[in-house]
Amino acid sequence: MSYERIRLESLKDKVMTAEQAALLINNGMVVGSSGFTKAGDSKAVLPAFASRAKSENIKITLMTGASLGHDTDGKLAEAGALSKRMPFQVDRTLRNKINAGEVLFIDQHLSESAELLHNKNLPPVDIAVIEVAYIDRDGSIVPTTSVGNSVTFAALAKQVILEINTAVSEDVYGIHDIYQAEDYPYRNVIPIVAPWNKIGRKTIPLDPSKVAGIVFTNMLDSPADIAAADPKTTAIAKHILAFFENEVLLGHLTDRLLPIQAGIGKVANAVLMGFKDSNFYDLTMFSEVLQDSTFDLIDAGKLSFASASSVTVSADCYQRVFGNLQKYRDKFVLRPQNISNTPGLIRRLGIIAINTAIEFDIYGNVNSTHISGSKIMNGIGGSGDFARNAYLSIFVTQAASKENVISHVLPMVSHVDHTEHDVDILVTDVGLADLRGLAPRERAQKIIDNCVHPDYKEQLQSYFNRACERGGHTPHVLEEAFSWHLRLADTGTMKK
Amino acid sequence: MSYERIRLESLKDKVMTAEQAALLINNGMVVGSSGFTKAGDSKAVLPAFASRAKSENIKITLMTGASLGHDTDGKLAEAGALSKRMPFQVDRTLRNKINAGEVLFIDQHLSESAELLHNKNLPPVDIAVIEVAYIDRDGSIVPTTSVGNSVTFAALAKQVILEINTAVSEDVYGIHDIYQAEDYPYRNVIPIVAPWNKIGRKTIPLDPSKVAGIVFTNMLDSPADIAAADPKTTAIAKHILAFFENEVLLGHLTDRLLPIQAGIGKVANAVLMGFKDSNFYDLTMFSEVLQDSTFDLIDAGKLSFASASSVTVSADCYQRVFGNLQKYRDKFVLRPQNISNTPGLIRRLGIIAINTAIEFDIYGNVNSTHISGSKIMNGIGGSGDFARNAYLSIFVTQAASKENVISHVLPMVSHVDHTEHDVDILVTDVGLADLRGLAPRERAQKIIDNCVHPDYKEQLQSYFNRACERGGHTPHVLEEAFSWHLRLADTGTMKK
Repeated sequence: MSYERIRLESLKDKVMTAEQAALLINNGMVVGSSGFTKAGDSKAVLPAFASRAKSENIKITLMTGASLGHDTDGKLAEAGALSKRMPFQVDRTLRNKINAGEVLFIDQHLSESAELLHNKNLPPVDIAVIEVAYIDRDGSIVPTTSVGNSVTFAALAKQVILEINTAVSEDVYGIHDIYQAEDYPYRNVIPIVAPWNKIGRKTIPLDPSKVAGIVFTNMLDSPADIAAADPKTTAIAKHILAFFENEVLLGHLTDRLLPIQAGIGKVANAVLMGFKDSNFYDLTMFSEVLQDSTFDLIDAGKLSFASASSVTVSADCYQRVFGNLQKYRDKFVLRPQNISNTPGLIRRLGIIAINTAIEFDIYGNVNSTHISGSKIMNGIGGSGDFARNAYLSIFVTQAASKENVISHVLPMVSHVDHTEHDVDILVTDVGLADLRGLAPRERAQKIIDNCVHPDYKEQLQSYFNRACERGGHTPHVLEEAFSWHLRLADTGTMKK
Repeated sequence: MSYERIRLESLKDKVMTAEQAALLINNGMVVGSSGFTKAGDSKAVLPAFASRAKSENIKITLMTGASLGHDTDGKLAEAGALSKRMPFQVDRTLRNKINAGEVLFIDQHLSESAELLHNKNLPPVDIAVIEVAYIDRDGSIVPTTSVGNSVTFAALAKQVILEINTAVSEDVYGIHDIYQAEDYPYRNVIPIVAPWNKIGRKTIPLDPSKVAGIVFTNMLDSPADIAAADPKTTAIAKHILAFFENEVLLGHLTDRLLPIQAGIGKVANAVLMGFKDSNFYDLTMFSEVLQDSTFDLIDAGKLSFASASSVTVSADCYQRVFGNLQKYRDKFVLRPQNISNTPGLIRRLGIIAINTAIEFDIYGNVNSTHISGSKIMNGIGGSGDFARNAYLSIFVTQAASKENVISHVLPMVSHVDHTEHDVDILVTDVGLADLRGLAPRERAQKIIDNCVHPDYKEQLQSYFNRACERGGHTPHVLEEAFSWHLRLADTGTMKK
C-alpha cells in the first residue's frame, strides 16, 4: 500500500479491498466509471463487482467515458451484471448480449453523456468508480491516462470509490486540463481557441465526504493492439495524403494543415504515419484518443501538440511516454470528453476529422455501427461530434472485403449514423471522392467512379441509373435498396 | 427614388433599373442572395434575371439564406435559370425541377453554408444581391427583415448589387446584431451566453468599391400563410405543454423553461400559442425564424426576448411589428444564420428545439425532407443544427394522414435526416414518447405505445416483435423495412 498517495489525512481510513468496495454497489444502481478506450479504467472494483454479481444475481446501469480495458465489460456481461450500458463499448461478449437484447445499450455521441447527466436527461449517478494517480491534499483527485466523464461523475455521484493505481507515476500531475461549466444549463464560454490552450485546473474537484472507499491497484492499462499497415490501409492513407497535398497547392490549406482528429485503429495510424515523410510540419491534433502514431510524430518533429481525452498506446509506447513525462508533458493534454468532443470547439478550431465507416452509400450516408441494419459492432463514439462540425469530414473504409463478397459501398446503408449533410470526403483503397459542393446525383456518380470496388462498379452504376429513371432529389429503387445485404445473407455474396 | 437612403455620396451614381442590374449576372456565375424564409429577399433583381435567363438561356448557381419569397424560386426554375441551388427551398416548381434532376440542389444545415464559403469548401461567390433598408455613410448596409448569409456574401462576393427597399422603414437600424469571425478558419469565441446578448455591429460591413449596382424597390415581403390550428396540431401542442408542465413539477425545468427554437408552420405556432394561457412566464426564444406567435406572446407578456435570423409574419403582424418598432426593438434581434444556428451556442444556451418531421421510425430516426426516400419536399433547414445540440430535441408529426392511408410512424424511415442519437421526444396527435435514457428496443415499445395511430398499432407491434426474434441492438426485418412505403405505392394504403 502507498498511503502517501492519499494526501488528505482524513481519507486514509477509507482504504479497503476491491471486494469490500464492490459491496458498496447495489442492485439497480447507476454506476459511473472512469475509462476511455481502455485508458484509466477501473481495474479492480468493477471486476470484483462482476464476481459478486454473478453469485448474487444483481444488475446495474453502467456509464463510462468510452470502452473499458482488459475484459472488464466482458466479465460484467458474462456475469449478467449489466442491465444498461452507455455510451460506448467494444467487447465481444457484451456486444453479443446487447444484440441478444439481454443488455440494453445506449449508443451516445461521446460529448453528450455529461450534458445529459447535468441536465437531468438521464437518471442520477448513485456511485462513481474512478481510477486516480493520487488524492491531493484538498481531496481533489489526479486522474491517470484518461479523463473521460470522470469530472461529471465526481461532481454528480452520491458516493465515490477511488482506485489509486500505483503503477501510474504521480508525475502525471499537470497533463490534464480539468474544466467544466459550473451552473448547468446556464453555461459560459469555453475559452479554447487553439489545441494547446489550457483553461482549467490540474485536478478533479471532489467533495471528500462523498468518498466511500479507496482501493489500491498496481496494473497498467490494457495495451492497444497495433495492427500493422496492410496494402488497403496504406492505399487509403496515400489517397488522403495526396488530397491534403493538393489542398495546399490550391491554397485552401497550409503545410501546417488544421488540427487533426483521427478515430482509433490502423487506418488512422497509417494516415498519421504518412505525415512522417511528408512536407507537412507543425501539425496539431484535437482528438479524443491519442495512439502510438501521435507520439511517433512528436518524436519525428512533425507534430507540435495533441489534445484528447485519453492516451491508448502499445506497451512500448506507454513506457516511452509515461516514463519520460518531462519530455512529453508540454506536448499533449487530456481533457474531459465534453470538452475534447464538444461541437462548438470542433467548429471553432476548424478540425480535419478522419473516421472509419462500416459501409457508406452512393449519396454519402455513413453507417459506423451496425451490421445489416440490426446488429451493433461498437458504437458511434465521437464520430458524430466531429463529423458534423469539422472543417473537413473524412470517412474511410475498405471498398470490399472477405474475398470481395462484401462491398462496403452500397445503394443504401442499412443504418445511418452520419447523413450526407455531414460527409465531405469518402475514401476507400480504390480511391477518394471529394463531395464538397456536390448535389446528391453528382455525389453518387463521383462515389461510383472513385470509390467502389471494380467487382461492384457496374452493378452499382446500374442501380443508380435505374433509380434516376424514377426521379427524385436522392433517387432510389426502394424495393431494391437493401437487396445487396439480403443477397449476402441468402447467397453468401453481394454480387449479382 | 429615395436617394437619401444612399448616405454614401459616391454610390449615388450606381443606381440603375432591376433589368440593368440583372445584366451584371452572367452565365455560370455563383450568386449569393439575401432572403431567409420569405424575409428580406431580392424582390426585383432576381425576378428580372429570371426573365432575362429565359430568353438568353443562361444559368447560375444560387445560394441564399433559406427560401425566397413570392414565386422568385419558381420563376427562376421555370426560366431554367438555375443549375444549382442551396441551401434551402420551399417552392413547388423548383421542387419539381429538383426531383426531375434538372436543378441540382444542395440541402445544407443552415449554419454551415457561411462556414463552407469562408473555408473554400464551396466555389467563390461572384456576385451578391442584398436587400437593404439603406446604405450608411461608411458604405456599410442595413439589412431589412432577415440577415441570413448576407454578411458572408457581402464579405466574399466580388461584386454586390443592393436593393434598397423603401417599403421598409429606416427605423430597422438597430434590430440586427452583425457579428462574424474575422480570420477563418481561425476563429475566436462567440461571446453570447443569453439570447438577448448583442455582440456585434448594427450594419453589415461592405467595401463600397464592390457595389456594382443599386436598385430601388418598394414591396413588402411575401406574407406568411398562417394556417388555423386544427384538432391534430392542437392535440400535439397539448401533449407538449403537458410534458413541459411535468418537467417543471419534477424540478428539471423552471416556469421560465429554457430558450425555445420552433420550426416554421402551424404546429410551432400552436405550441407557442399554448403558452399564452399557461403558468409559464419570462420565456425566451433562440430560433431561426420568428412567426406571428412570437409577437403574440410578447404582447401577452409571456415572452421577454426572441433571437433569430428572420421575421416571417402575416401582413397584419408585419404592420404591428414594423409599424411600432419603438415598442418591439428591445424585444428581438436578428443575427446572421451562422450565429443564430451555430451548434456551439445551441449547446451553450440549452435550447428546447421543436421541429417537424415528415415521418419517424420505431427507433426514433427522423425523416424531415423526403417522400418515399427519393423525392425532396423542402430541405433540412436548421433542424439538424438545433436537434443535435439542444437541451431537448422534440420532433412532431401527425400520426396518420390522407384518411389514414399513410402512417407517419414506420418500421424504418425511407430517408434519415436525424438519427436516433439526436432525438429526445417524439410527438403525434396520438401522444408523446419521452425517449430519454432509453435503448433502441425500449424506444420502439414506447413509440408504438404512445405515438402510432390506432389503425397501425398492431401492424407496427407485429413488425417489432418479429424483428426482435431475429435479434440485434436495433432489430429490423430488412426485407420488410420499406414494405409500408411500397404497399402505399402499390395499393394506395400502408395498411395490410
